[in-house]
Amino acid sequence: MTSSIDKLVGRIAELNNPSVVGIDPRLAQIPAQIVDAAFARHGKTAAAAAEAFFIFGRGIIDGVCDVVPAVKPQIAFFEQYGAEGIAAYRQTVAYAKGKGLVVIGDVKRGDIASTAAAYSDGHIGRVDIGGERHAVFDEDFITLNPYLGSDAIEPFIADCERYGKGLFVLVKTSNASSRDVQDLTTPNGAVYEEVARLVHRWGEKAIGKRGYSSVGAVVGANFPEQARRIRELLPDAFFLVPGYGAQGALPEGVAACLDRHGRGVVVNNSRGIIFAYADKKYTNDFSEMEFGAAARRACLDMKAELNRITK
Amino acid sequence: MTSSIDKLVGRIAELNNPSVVGIDPRLAQIPAQIVDAAFARHGKTAAAAAEAFFIFGRGIIDGVCDVVPAVKPQIAFFEQYGAEGIAAYRQTVAYAKGKGLVVIGDVKRGDIASTAAAYSDGHIGRVDIGGERHAVFDEDFITLNPYLGSDAIEPFIADCERYGKGLFVLVKTSNASSRDVQDLTTPNGAVYEEVARLVHRWGEKAIGKRGYSSVGAVVGANFPEQARRIRELLPDAFFLVPGYGAQGALPEGVAACLDRHGRGVVVNNSRGIIFAYADKKYTNDFSEMEFGAAARRACLDMKAELNRITK
Repeated sequence: MTSSIDKLVGRIAELNNPSVVGIDPRLAQIPAQIVDAAFARHGKTAAAAAEAFFIFGRGIIDGVCDVVPAVKPQIAFFEQYGAEGIAAYRQTVAYAKGKGLVVIGDVKRGDIASTAAAYSDGHIGRVDIGGERHAVFDEDFITLNPYLGSDAIEPFIADCERYGKGLFVLVKTSNASSRDVQDLTTPNGAVYEEVARLVHRWGEKAIGKRGYSSVGAVVGANFPEQARRIRELLPDAFFLVPGYGAQGALPEGVAACLDRHGRGVVVNNSRGIIFAYADKKYTNDFSEMEFGAAARRACLDMKAELNRITK
Repeated sequence: MTSSIDKLVGRIAELNNPSVVGIDPRLAQIPAQIVDAAFARHGKTAAAAAEAFFIFGRGIIDGVCDVVPAVKPQIAFFEQYGAEGIAAYRQTVAYAKGKGLVVIGDVKRGDIASTAAAYSDGHIGRVDIGGERHAVFDEDFITLNPYLGSDAIEPFIADCERYGKGLFVLVKTSNASSRDVQDLTTPNGAVYEEVARLVHRWGEKAIGKRGYSSVGAVVGANFPEQARRIRELLPDAFFLVPGYGAQGALPEGVAACLDRHGRGVVVNNSRGIIFAYADKKYTNDFSEMEFGAAARRACLDMKAELNRITK
């Protein structure tokens, strides 16, 4: 079994592209032709929204799967449409995996003990139904929130080992208000530094064949100084780096996340890729229904930008 | 429109019972007759698990709805079974509301900006589908994780105001590892104290007719000293208090959560109520399929215990 972290590191190297496409669908930004067709079939219902999300996501995946190593569907956009949305999320995860992509489920779950175990079973482990074991969402990685501490993370770590999965734990997020809790000072540095130390502890027994732990960190690219400090504390962790593109992170922020080998990051861009078809930079070259091809072009542009930073 | 917090405070007073029943279904602990019937209809599938959860939850709700003000379904147990599980969660929420119960969705979500807005739309607000606005989960309250700070909470606060909903933000959770992050010391006290100050700020403009804010706090009953400190910082907040029953919280911990009026708490018990039918304290009086009546008896016993503390 190749672990998710080894697979991710391997695909980044093969494609020479350390980026991940965030799948954050919004009905108002999906090509009208897809949405209208779904409304025609299902009425203005959650089932229509879910179908439009899957068809749009499939088009994005088809467009980008040969140029990026990974996609990161954000479950919130699906969950807001209830069971139908969750079905589309699962379908999107499965479709992306079928296309050879590493899938990072952006779920940011966090809960105690047996509840954490239930989340872990459903997302990266197996659920038991009358003695039969079923994989449900089966993402390669999921994101987790550390506020509840070690016993809330341990069930996920056990499933990483059992099923070759991986985690990205929130350390320093890319939003302005991340300072409210994450930047509070403690005797040993900021809260995010203490969380980085926890992530180190959670991941130190889970180092893969390529030198990185299955327990990675989410580190926003907007805060270069903090990112440099977190990298010191987590020399062997892979970083999932949000904030690129629409959130305005600078190349300097990505550079600060790199490890001693100039690697160790996967940089996320969501809106800048999936809605490239509506970006005036690309509208001359692509029609609305060529949104997948526009996303692919935006990925190649981002790859070139990132390669200038990481080289 | 009566706000959720006013409704909760009112029902607690009417029933003289400050407790909430946590609906944390587990296939292995649901009466075999329910699970076997679901397997017979659907095979050993997620659909069977979801059906068993709803039927069990409905029985619990029928049993307890005239003696407790609220129920707290834990979404993780449903989510682990995918779309079918999520459909059963939504169905459980709706059924409980139909029986006059206040519903606290234990979802512990937390994400940035537009993603937080998507969670809020789906859980306590409305989603827009082609210009039509739909309520999806429509819980009265949900729980939230504060690690991402203010901008991750604000979309929910706006929906509380718009739709009369409420929030319980994690401040100090009931698990042993809550110390890892929540107890870190800062120049102004522990992290949980700083989070309590944030909760105060988030809730100060949302005080209801009965004097409590729509933005409440989750404070574990296991840590009396910390609970007393949090109460000082949050005199007008309602506390959702987990840790009673199976997690071994002491009456002293509940007492520490009370406000200056000897009120301001709703105490959760999950396993101690919903699986009372299998507890040797109740097995003489109730058969397996009388699990709803057993839960009702356990609620009355818990009410008597709580009334000794709060009086």
